[in-house]
Amino acid sequence: MMFYAFHAQTVDLFDAESLTVKVKLPIGLSLESAFIRSESDNEEHLSPMQLVSKDDIWQIWQGLLKPDTAHEITLYSFKFLTTNNQYWLSEAGLSHYFPERDTHFRFNPRYQPATWVYSQVFYQIFPERFCDGDPGNNVKEADYLYQGKPVVAKTWAELPDRKQGPREFYGGDLEGIRQRLDYLQDLGVTALYLNPIFTSPSSHKYDTIDYDHVDPHFGGDEAFIALCNDLRNRKMRIILDAVVNHTSERHPWFDRYGDYETLGAYQSKESATRGFYIFENDNPESYVGWYNVKTLPVLDFSDPELQARVYKNNNAILRKWMRAPYSIDGWRFDVIHMLGEGRGAKNNHVYAKAFCQTLREENPEAYMLGEHFFEASKWLQGDQEDGAMNYYGFTRPLREFLSGVDFRGHPVTIDAADLDYLLQRARIKIPFALQLSQFNLLGSHDVARVLTVLNGDIALLKIAITALFTYTGVPCIYYGDEIGLEGGEDPDCRRTFPWDEKVWNHDLRQHYQWLIQLRKREKVLQEGAFLSLYAKDDIYAYARVLENEAIVTILNRGRESTIELPIWKLGVTDEFKLELKEKSSRVFKINNLNSRILECF
Amino acid sequence: MMFYAFHAQTVDLFDAESLTVKVKLPIGLSLESAFIRSESDNEEHLSPMQLVSKDDIWQIWQGLLKPDTAHEITLYSFKFLTTNNQYWLSEAGLSHYFPERDTHFRFNPRYQPATWVYSQVFYQIFPERFCDGDPGNNVKEADYLYQGKPVVAKTWAELPDRKQGPREFYGGDLEGIRQRLDYLQDLGVTALYLNPIFTSPSSHKYDTIDYDHVDPHFGGDEAFIALCNDLRNRKMRIILDAVVNHTSERHPWFDRYGDYETLGAYQSKESATRGFYIFENDNPESYVGWYNVKTLPVLDFSDPELQARVYKNNNAILRKWMRAPYSIDGWRFDVIHMLGEGRGAKNNHVYAKAFCQTLREENPEAYMLGEHFFEASKWLQGDQEDGAMNYYGFTRPLREFLSGVDFRGHPVTIDAADLDYLLQRARIKIPFALQLSQFNLLGSHDVARVLTVLNGDIALLKIAITALFTYTGVPCIYYGDEIGLEGGEDPDCRRTFPWDEKVWNHDLRQHYQWLIQLRKREKVLQEGAFLSLYAKDDIYAYARVLENEAIVTILNRGRESTIELPIWKLGVTDEFKLELKEKSSRVFKINNLNSRILECF
Repeated sequence: MMFYAFHAQTVDLFDAESLTVKVKLPIGLSLESAFIRSESDNEEHLSPMQLVSKDDIWQIWQGLLKPDTAHEITLYSFKFLTTNNQYWLSEAGLSHYFPERDTHFRFNPRYQPATWVYSQVFYQIFPERFCDGDPGNNVKEADYLYQGKPVVAKTWAELPDRKQGPREFYGGDLEGIRQRLDYLQDLGVTALYLNPIFTSPSSHKYDTIDYDHVDPHFGGDEAFIALCNDLRNRKMRIILDAVVNHTSERHPWFDRYGDYETLGAYQSKESATRGFYIFENDNPESYVGWYNVKTLPVLDFSDPELQARVYKNNNAILRKWMRAPYSIDGWRFDVIHMLGEGRGAKNNHVYAKAFCQTLREENPEAYMLGEHFFEASKWLQGDQEDGAMNYYGFTRPLREFLSGVDFRGHPVTIDAADLDYLLQRARIKIPFALQLSQFNLLGSHDVARVLTVLNGDIALLKIAITALFTYTGVPCIYYGDEIGLEGGEDPDCRRTFPWDEKVWNHDLRQHYQWLIQLRKREKVLQEGAFLSLYAKDDIYAYARVLENEAIVTILNRGRESTIELPIWKLGVTDEFKLELKEKSSRVFKINNLNSRILECF
Repeated sequence: MMFYAFHAQTVDLFDAESLTVKVKLPIGLSLESAFIRSESDNEEHLSPMQLVSKDDIWQIWQGLLKPDTAHEITLYSFKFLTTNNQYWLSEAGLSHYFPERDTHFRFNPRYQPATWVYSQVFYQIFPERFCDGDPGNNVKEADYLYQGKPVVAKTWAELPDRKQGPREFYGGDLEGIRQRLDYLQDLGVTALYLNPIFTSPSSHKYDTIDYDHVDPHFGGDEAFIALCNDLRNRKMRIILDAVVNHTSERHPWFDRYGDYETLGAYQSKESATRGFYIFENDNPESYVGWYNVKTLPVLDFSDPELQARVYKNNNAILRKWMRAPYSIDGWRFDVIHMLGEGRGAKNNHVYAKAFCQTLREENPEAYMLGEHFFEASKWLQGDQEDGAMNYYGFTRPLREFLSGVDFRGHPVTIDAADLDYLLQRARIKIPFALQLSQFNLLGSHDVARVLTVLNGDIALLKIAITALFTYTGVPCIYYGDEIGLEGGEDPDCRRTFPWDEKVWNHDLRQHYQWLIQLRKREKVLQEGAFLSLYAKDDIYAYARVLENEAIVTILNRGRESTIELPIWKLGVTDEFKLELKEKSSRVFKINNLNSRILECF
């Protein structure tokens, strides 16, 4: 028997003692009984449910779930008994046998992400390349040496050069961003994520030399205050990049070249900050660099004074920027999974939790975002991060589906069924409230631009964009993607934003704008449950569902075709045949799941 | 393209720095390159592999795996590149996209279970019901009260009575077990697991009143010494039941009825053992019982003195019985998943690890077994248990496949494909070395006997037995199953062993003996990798593979049929058609995977 059951966590119904949960099942299923199955204190509990309503299409069962007292996360699933069979509902859908624990619904009674996150449209800016608002603060040709070579000042129109990478400068700055806020709001953006802005000799600024000040070439602290004020007036949000896994070799804590009066770790075994870094032996050259890159000495978080300066002290780095006059809304943590004690990631969770606690102390509504290229579910249970840069659960499978290559440039073949499976497995291992706060992206400063990976195929890019704004999680646009900017691997993906509108792809930008408006208007896209509808060969269709509304998205990477969409899974009994153009996407809304009215966009 | 790849961990090749791993692939696959993929310090590493040999059938690639320094377990998988595609190998088999982390191969460089465990055939005895070797120590009718009612002395031939349950006694004892060691060795048994034997007023003895002495009705410490000596002479092993989640209400630490001079926790707030238990308030009646059963007050492991007495002290309970003159080979921990601080399982892992450490201090080759009805993978990564009573990963799916009911008596429908999936998902989440040390069983003192669940169908039972001795993990026979003993839910599953051979099912017992001998003779059944060969409707076939040998098992729960077995997956290119009788099992051996010689049993 084919049927569909539906459950979405309703946080409103939670009180200190228990969570009221409901399940919607098709009326055709003759249930003898239904249970909520949980594992409080690691032992099975079956809590009986009651039938609370039914109509021509649905029956709704309700029960009480007692949170697990021994674990951060309460896991639960549903067991349904008919006269001669049993069915289970987990995040992986229905099965006729006990579903494995990893697929059970998850609820964290102690923590839900701030709901403001769900409604955002983020925009990631690599500040050195977005807009040069104040040419007076630009890095000048051969102003200083970086890694032994003179820095290079380039004109806005030039392309990045792999040989120059971090030592080539175009002049982008915070004043430039401030001047373009009208542009961003016109696009529909509500929040910014900036790559690092603290003082650093490189153009990417992932090698910090001063966590307490904005780089003077970006306009210094004053420019950041002005930007924050302007954002606040516009009710826009901002998060910054926290790069605390390592510092620059020129940070005073380390001071490889004797730049400072106070002796850094490299200069003396007696240095007050010697313990911040890892030295294999007494030879100062024996220090550990990130990925063995000697310009990036790794920080050792077992050092109490380092802990104090990064997050414990009243004026710790993570606290300072969350306070006035900056009051940033959260942090994105660079390579947070690699951070820990000694040379590796030992006790990583201790520091991820401590950072999380720090952010919440400063602002209970802060957004904590982690960089992760691979599965990050262990950081995403509510006690650490609110979101991962969702390469694993979104970017990677979607780009592979559309492009046929993986992040390493290796060939890969996945069809819509594979895509559905990969998205599902990533999604279901985190609590629903955190599924909604994942940070979805099509590209970033670390990977080739999506349009370039798609060989410049705008039709395929539009499919990716449709997915970005309709899939579960918070969308983020990488600066310039919206007007068709291309670029290969780093540093080519960090080209300057072309402000000459004549070179923009306006049709592409309108596709973004339309989807951004839709996303902002439709709460179901921000907070709705996810339901896979169709996943075969080139075509993937899914619905987001919230109460009696649904929005259905269809992605077709292949040729023109007609499909019959199983909207009966949503309780809509009409037949629904759909014509799909070659390489296209469609979005439509069902306004009332019981009365069968469709509104197509 | 269909093909099969094979990898089994070879622990011999491990040194402190790295693990040498090999993969066997069919020669037809044109590989450009192959990599070992790992996540040391949470970041992806691709370590290149080399082609080390090839023949007409196989190509073998080899590489070095560096253990993860940040985690107990090193996870790894394999990435293969052809000209236009990629393939991955994980414990879940081959896929054409990156397999999720849970399915990756696991290796614990710090710990492997003692290999003696792999070759055992365990036999579980509920001592009160196996054999009455010394009628002189029997509990006498109305000798004392248990839960307010007189104990009952029953004759060996009587059936258990649910109304009498723990207060009915038949006289079984340790001397009885000792007298039957010839019988057990004739069957092929090599190791015993005894239900609790320490002093307790009940027949099941899960409510201990003295952890330091064997119950006098079982013959006291002397009888146990005699049994242990006899076992040692026969080179047989023994593990005991550790019931330390709770005690009897009559344990002196608690002393609900004022039986002892020293005041127990119930008798006084000032009691030295008050902190061993959980009282909601000053009222002694406010104590917490296991599952709210007031006769079983729950122990609170946050109490340092309790920790000392259970595992820390030199004469701690867990240590004493591992030393001479007893020298037991390990412990089975009752409801270990529920044990912890306060009323629940808080910090359960702290105590599971501490128990593990204790056992290894006493005997580095000790076997630590946990009772778990549900997924236990988090206890089975090498830092806690060696094995779970494998209800979740073996008993449950197999019994459901053969009987159509689950442990709660609810109807369930699973076919061979479901069975294969359920077995696989349970197996792959633990390191291979621990897959081999899981404690597989068809039934126990806690569930209805397997023959009874199968409605007395001996043909179906034989299929289950074939699986028990050929599947991955250590087999355990529940006393009496081998001669056809029946019994429903507890206490009916605890009937006395009928020593009158006229009532035995000798044919059934021979089926056991034949499979036990096979298992003991064939190392491939003890340590071989697992490969699923066929799983459809009523028929399930799998192979165990070790070097150039394989043993194939076919289970058919349905009608007579002929199948073509895909032994090409083993590198054997002969066609292999097999006739299967109704409700039957077959086992055959392939002696040399390259030269295609089959030896059928």
